[in-house]
Amino acid sequence: MESSSVAFLGPVASFSHQAAAEYFGSSATLLPHVSFGDAFASVQNGTTDYAIIPCENSTNGSVVQTLDLLIDREDRYTDVKVVAEYYLTVHHCLLARKGAFPSYQRGETQIAKLYTHLQAWGQCEIFLEKYCKGVERQDVSSTSKAGEIVSKETGEQSAAIASRFAAEHHGLDVLEENIEDKDDNTTRFLVLRNAKSDSGARLPGEDSTTDATTTTQRSLFTFMVPQEAPGTLADALLIFKKHGMNITSINTRPSQQKPWKYVFLVECDMASTDQSQRAVADILCGLRQVTEQCKYLGTWANQLTKS
Amino acid sequence: MESSSVAFLGPVASFSHQAAAEYFGSSATLLPHVSFGDAFASVQNGTTDYAIIPCENSTNGSVVQTLDLLIDREDRYTDVKVVAEYYLTVHHCLLARKGAFPSYQRGETQIAKLYTHLQAWGQCEIFLEKYCKGVERQDVSSTSKAGEIVSKETGEQSAAIASRFAAEHHGLDVLEENIEDKDDNTTRFLVLRNAKSDSGARLPGEDSTTDATTTTQRSLFTFMVPQEAPGTLADALLIFKKHGMNITSINTRPSQQKPWKYVFLVECDMASTDQSQRAVADILCGLRQVTEQCKYLGTWANQLTKS
Repeated sequence: MESSSVAFLGPVASFSHQAAAEYFGSSATLLPHVSFGDAFASVQNGTTDYAIIPCENSTNGSVVQTLDLLIDREDRYTDVKVVAEYYLTVHHCLLARKGAFPSYQRGETQIAKLYTHLQAWGQCEIFLEKYCKGVERQDVSSTSKAGEIVSKETGEQSAAIASRFAAEHHGLDVLEENIEDKDDNTTRFLVLRNAKSDSGARLPGEDSTTDATTTTQRSLFTFMVPQEAPGTLADALLIFKKHGMNITSINTRPSQQKPWKYVFLVECDMASTDQSQRAVADILCGLRQVTEQCKYLGTWANQLTKS
Repeated sequence: MESSSVAFLGPVASFSHQAAAEYFGSSATLLPHVSFGDAFASVQNGTTDYAIIPCENSTNGSVVQTLDLLIDREDRYTDVKVVAEYYLTVHHCLLARKGAFPSYQRGETQIAKLYTHLQAWGQCEIFLEKYCKGVERQDVSSTSKAGEIVSKETGEQSAAIASRFAAEHHGLDVLEENIEDKDDNTTRFLVLRNAKSDSGARLPGEDSTTDATTTTQRSLFTFMVPQEAPGTLADALLIFKKHGMNITSINTRPSQQKPWKYVFLVECDMASTDQSQRAVADILCGLRQVTEQCKYLGTWANQLTKS
């Protein structure tokens, strides 16, 4: 793959960074950004070839901020399209400064202090209750930050809960792996690209019709329905069915034009065939007749049905 | 109206408290609760007759925590039903301790310090930029808390941004009213009641078929669709159309059974007629044939179409 530049939500060694590294590989230049909006803007402006953005977690649901950027109420990111998706399973490790616990033994070794992000405590409750009961805990802004702190605390016998990726980045010892309670807690990322740009390498799944390993492709549309026309939402959703598309998710966000008027984000699947590009065009045409401000945000290979 | 007890999310003088006071009137006993879950539990256990819970804001969208409690994945609140809705428009005031600024003049009077909740700064940006530029700001946990702090600071020339309701509760002077940028920022509340309970007063809109001022009634259903059956979501939504129901909103939440399996919450409207209770029963029957774990969460008078 030709070298590409990729925007992700920082800090370095965050889960977004890990998703970017796993998806784009070592040849890509991965660039931390301070907000999702900045990452969208970098793709729109051509500062980076791609952005990789979390859109949904299997336990917590949709990332509302990402939905709002995809809806793009102020037409700031009109050229940004979704070209791929990537699933990252969230695994947590118990990490310590290199050599801090040379003869670590589960439940035996005395750890003075633990650092991690608020969410990670909740995700590792069973392990912590069993093997780290009573250890002082300190919340920090990210699991990666926890790893960084521990790497610099030379005086203290402290440990961090963070990813193996963060361990590698901050040069830490991995005392324990997969200490999370639920082993299927997964975040889905979307890969974004500027539709008008030719720079950067093409991705394997980017043109879903040529990716022979994929059996299904997924498309994303957004639209509003006129408030004064009852039944329009059902009519709009029927269009997908008519053209052989299976609706897999619907998200609803306020239009922010007037109260209780909504923007709908609809994702749908269909088998990858010669007809699928035609189906997308037909759906778009049908939606334009019954909905308002209908937008097509891209088609990509469904990674869950990859053979 | 016979006296009822009502659970709301505290602290006292919060927007939820205001919604409860406006909706239930002065004869009801309004009881602050520390979480939405506690308010649901109080209705399920019969500790209170009603609860009033924010479910959606016109700018920020759905309150995910409320959706998850309505879905009730662990069958904790099986008797809790929605019986009414209430719309509260969010207005902010500039408030000060009684007599602190006897000759207040907009933009002239020197205020030393301002307190409010993080969200309220953003909602009053235009006023603050124009008349309170450079004034020291302190974030607090709620607008009501801001009012309470200011009421007790006898030494300082401080002010709070909070509701008129909070002003009355904390005995504050209202220096300015309606200082919010957007005058239609509205929160929709749901009124909950135990379906098996007879205690407490009946509400005016509670039995929508007898409320002559209402032209439309709204119903709420939740269900999951089997992952292995493509097109089921479209089929389920068609059932609403078939029985004359207009789908007004769809929310999607993770099932937390397995990743990427969802629970859908569907709200729908129909004209209040003798047929509408029959339509609800028919929809429920239809949904049970194509969906999983389908639940009916109540029918109430749509307050937006009240004549």
